[in-house]
Amino acid sequence: MEPSTSDMHSTAEIPTNVHQVVPPPHTSTVKRVKTKLKETFFPDDPLRQFKGQPLNRKLILGAQYIFPILQWFPNYSFKLFKSDLISGLTIASLAIPQGISYAKLASLPPIVGLYSSFVPPLVYVVLGSSRDLAVGPVSIASLVMGSMITEEVSPTTQTYLFIQLAFTSTFFAGLFQAALGILRLGFIIDFLSKAILIGFMAGAAVIVSLQQLKSLLGITHFTKEMGIIPVMRSVFHKTDEWSWETILLGIFFLGLLLLARHISIRKPELFWVSAGAPLASVIISTIFTFAIKGQHHGISIIGKLQQGINPASANKLLFHGNHLGLTIKTGIITGILSLTEGIAVGRTFATIRNYKVDGNKEMMAIGFMNMVGSTVSCYVTTGSFSRSAVNHNAGARTAMSNAVMSVTVMVTLLFLMPLFHYTPNVVLGAIIITAVIGLIDISAAYLIWKLDKFDFLVLLTAFFGVIFISVQYGLALSVGLSIFRILLQVTRPKTVMLGNIPATNIYRNLHHYKEATKVPGFLILSIEAPINFANITYLHERILRWVEEEEGTTTENLSLQCVILEMSAVSSIDTSGVSLFKELKLTLKLKSVELVLVNPLAEVIEKLKKADEANDFVRADYLFLTVGEAVATLTSAMKGQSPTMEEETYAIVTEC
Amino acid sequence: MEPSTSDMHSTAEIPTNVHQVVPPPHTSTVKRVKTKLKETFFPDDPLRQFKGQPLNRKLILGAQYIFPILQWFPNYSFKLFKSDLISGLTIASLAIPQGISYAKLASLPPIVGLYSSFVPPLVYVVLGSSRDLAVGPVSIASLVMGSMITEEVSPTTQTYLFIQLAFTSTFFAGLFQAALGILRLGFIIDFLSKAILIGFMAGAAVIVSLQQLKSLLGITHFTKEMGIIPVMRSVFHKTDEWSWETILLGIFFLGLLLLARHISIRKPELFWVSAGAPLASVIISTIFTFAIKGQHHGISIIGKLQQGINPASANKLLFHGNHLGLTIKTGIITGILSLTEGIAVGRTFATIRNYKVDGNKEMMAIGFMNMVGSTVSCYVTTGSFSRSAVNHNAGARTAMSNAVMSVTVMVTLLFLMPLFHYTPNVVLGAIIITAVIGLIDISAAYLIWKLDKFDFLVLLTAFFGVIFISVQYGLALSVGLSIFRILLQVTRPKTVMLGNIPATNIYRNLHHYKEATKVPGFLILSIEAPINFANITYLHERILRWVEEEEGTTTENLSLQCVILEMSAVSSIDTSGVSLFKELKLTLKLKSVELVLVNPLAEVIEKLKKADEANDFVRADYLFLTVGEAVATLTSAMKGQSPTMEEETYAIVTEC
Repeated sequence: MEPSTSDMHSTAEIPTNVHQVVPPPHTSTVKRVKTKLKETFFPDDPLRQFKGQPLNRKLILGAQYIFPILQWFPNYSFKLFKSDLISGLTIASLAIPQGISYAKLASLPPIVGLYSSFVPPLVYVVLGSSRDLAVGPVSIASLVMGSMITEEVSPTTQTYLFIQLAFTSTFFAGLFQAALGILRLGFIIDFLSKAILIGFMAGAAVIVSLQQLKSLLGITHFTKEMGIIPVMRSVFHKTDEWSWETILLGIFFLGLLLLARHISIRKPELFWVSAGAPLASVIISTIFTFAIKGQHHGISIIGKLQQGINPASANKLLFHGNHLGLTIKTGIITGILSLTEGIAVGRTFATIRNYKVDGNKEMMAIGFMNMVGSTVSCYVTTGSFSRSAVNHNAGARTAMSNAVMSVTVMVTLLFLMPLFHYTPNVVLGAIIITAVIGLIDISAAYLIWKLDKFDFLVLLTAFFGVIFISVQYGLALSVGLSIFRILLQVTRPKTVMLGNIPATNIYRNLHHYKEATKVPGFLILSIEAPINFANITYLHERILRWVEEEEGTTTENLSLQCVILEMSAVSSIDTSGVSLFKELKLTLKLKSVELVLVNPLAEVIEKLKKADEANDFVRADYLFLTVGEAVATLTSAMKGQSPTMEEETYAIVTEC
Repeated sequence: MEPSTSDMHSTAEIPTNVHQVVPPPHTSTVKRVKTKLKETFFPDDPLRQFKGQPLNRKLILGAQYIFPILQWFPNYSFKLFKSDLISGLTIASLAIPQGISYAKLASLPPIVGLYSSFVPPLVYVVLGSSRDLAVGPVSIASLVMGSMITEEVSPTTQTYLFIQLAFTSTFFAGLFQAALGILRLGFIIDFLSKAILIGFMAGAAVIVSLQQLKSLLGITHFTKEMGIIPVMRSVFHKTDEWSWETILLGIFFLGLLLLARHISIRKPELFWVSAGAPLASVIISTIFTFAIKGQHHGISIIGKLQQGINPASANKLLFHGNHLGLTIKTGIITGILSLTEGIAVGRTFATIRNYKVDGNKEMMAIGFMNMVGSTVSCYVTTGSFSRSAVNHNAGARTAMSNAVMSVTVMVTLLFLMPLFHYTPNVVLGAIIITAVIGLIDISAAYLIWKLDKFDFLVLLTAFFGVIFISVQYGLALSVGLSIFRILLQVTRPKTVMLGNIPATNIYRNLHHYKEATKVPGFLILSIEAPINFANITYLHERILRWVEEEEGTTTENLSLQCVILEMSAVSSIDTSGVSLFKELKLTLKLKSVELVLVNPLAEVIEKLKKADEANDFVRADYLFLTVGEAVATLTSAMKGQSPTMEEETYAIVTEC
């Protein structure tokens, strides 16, 4: 390389083999806004497959897009059906006792749980795009809906109103879910991070399990609050209501169910052990209670259940009155929670089996399913973690397994309801505890602790927030903490000092790569965040501190001549950010230090050029494409002033 | 470079001259948290200067840190005082009419404005570290305080309570400001970006000017609301109250003041023209009104003013009762607004004259000044934009000019108050309009429009929010929009396809650098944001879309073999982010595409290593320090499979 002879403070002539930083090709504002909107709302580009197709093909594709059943049903075979039949029957045997249990968790009549396992799965068969999701009521959404409505209306004294509000909330949940999908705002559920979900689910599992102490201990007068403190007070202030018969029965079946769960975890091919255990427990305990007339020995039983399929409930929806705010709030919260569960489950199994689940489409499917459900006596449903896993393990091939389950539930509703008369409530409690214990994921929590202490703090906030305050506040607090972290990262971006890795033109973090060495006379900093109004003050101070520290340590005869800012990681900049460089240039000039920018990205260089009409700080002699080229060029420019540097940087210069 | 002969799908032997990515040296959690806290709360490292000093020196430095006057007063000379005397007298001539006007803007008795120009400047002389700041009441904080308290209490019928609430709000403003400084939370004011401030100040200027129509037109029954609509309604429904004498006087003095302002803008050395104009206008108009007995011709005058310096007002502070919430809210909002103005002004002039203003220390100074002020009949004060500029232009050298101004105001309070009896209110209105018109910065707004459309939207939101809704909501809306933008940037990070710049080993954005070319068989993507829970879903979908598009365009016989993710711009990662790479590896494996990471930064590589115990995706053969090395190494590994690539990438290989 031919060294330039001009002084670096004048407009140096740039050697022709140094690569210039150029502004990106011009794009119009309209096109930019369009691109931005597309990336924000249509990152998956759903219309891609329609491009260049003939009209009738487009119509077919459109119908298939709206009704995914049209994609797989035409090729449906008896072989596939055999698989779906087995898995459908398996999840039905789980769905019936769980449906009854979860409805009780939501303080709803047990039969509503079965209604909700009948219609929604059928809707999902037509609209859903996951092949593994087993649809029905789930524990967390049931718990939250029950506890939120209980805050205003009592399920025991105002039963009819309570049911009305539950259906109305379900309608709003569905509306909210479908709206998220249609408006393509699905990314809102992304704000429930893994850490939040793990903490939240563990907290919910504890709360749900504690609630079951009512059935497990046979207590009749139990608190209606959800927090750990009122529940424990209820338990220990009502020891006179404890029933030893109930406790014995509870311990026995809880042990049985946990053992079955343990076996299936150890040997996944024995999935049917844990899948069948709840139904088996219900059957055995019902026969046992019937035989010993348990209801006369302090064992509480379900009692008479209605027979027949779902009655219409559209007339029960309440869109006016005092409780409208409550139903909307409950709808949004249970809607977001059930959506998160459904989408997460769908994505997990789609990844395992290598097909794709479209998040926004799933939201519409789940939302529409809940809206339909709310008109036929169903409460909020989604894809369940536990039952979907069983469905997958049992070999489900398409959404048809949901239809099989649905028909089985229908048969139950029509003919088998009287059989549940003597089912003891304690068994339902044991089934719930066994199901929710699976939501406590200690090893995932430990991994988070190992990886990221702040994430772990978020997890703990969700966990303790749910246990000690309430489900909603626990969730809100942890989401708030996560967003605060993002803002803090933006406000306090990292700046890192780079050094040269010997015998290369690579520059890396001096602290990270121990072999890297400083280049005398240069301070090379990498800014690792977008620059905006929230961090320019900090960056200004931090960079000046780097400069002062550097000036303090210079013991050689070569003082600091140049600050090189490596901008590869500055993905965007706003108007305040532009002013940072103006001010920095000014401050450094007073110290006779030059400011050089390396590899500003498209958006950044464009804005800097626009703002710098006087051509003060964004001109070719202060802009380089790589740190190596910047150091080489500036070194040769400085040569006249400081001949001692020549040797040290010669190796680099020749490599460029 | 000796090409490796192993297949790229097996654990390739890494040539020894390829640079390895290593995890950073181990640091303990405690040390990390300490560093993080230091960067968050002490980015300026205020204790640096104490290091290694003897004890008595430390004490002196400590005293100087708390009382900056000790830094400059020992070296204070008569020469400096001469400069400060001139500038002090100049700003006093501006401060007296402005003080009276701004107090009226806050619906407070005019004399409170003078009280506030007497004590607070003296406090600032001792505690403040800016040499140019001229302290006293300012228009925006006056307007906001007046309008917020008026929402609950009428300044005309409940005058005493109104004054009590104003002093109490001032106390809370000071407390809040000092607390921000002590807790080192100064970065909160950084969230008021330049765009917000420009829009907000322009909106406030419009609102303030409209309010002056009351005095300018001589209307006696005027609305108490601030919005543009009720004000215009007041103006045009009360045409019968318009007084032509007042209007004439108003137009004359407004013209005079605007002319003076225009002259000083054109010729900055004539700064004294606009600085002296308000006082001159007050004197001339007072004499004129007195001469023609204007009060009998519909010209409203100030009337009798109390004489004497500030009475104590600590007993007027109200820390209980119905209005406590209002005073706290008013305190926080006026506190944050006046702080922003004071700090921004201080920083601007510090940059021009190359000294440093410590943000957190200034907050404590301004906060303490307001707390003291509230006990001696002062309302909220800070460094004023307009008067500080005059101070600077008049040659102020130290904070002593504030003391000169303060003494001048004291003399006025003691002896000259009766002279203001006949001052017409219309002149005060003209003075306010002239002052606030300077807050409308069209050229800055145009620059923002040119640079960043979203920032301009924020500006418009602030402007129209202030004009049509209210000062607080305008501010809150625009801050909310700015934060929303940050979150959106995090949720939808940019991914960019890189290409090779011919005859180098530099890889840059293909869209930006037109000469860059794709490397066949490789998809090289750069991720330009931290990876976290809020964006993993998007990134996963987006990267797969890149892959699918790439697979679709491959017309040569060489299919996509490898996705290279350039991670230099990924400054941090959380636990959800780690799972992205696991899933991506899995999905790509099913397509027989390898995933390779380039230059993950310290935090990222460390977390990936920790999470990848099975050594599935973070191992030496999938990790490179530069894209060039990755392409070279992988190409030689692929050679056996696709000999056609050899030539194209040979140039790169030899360069590495």
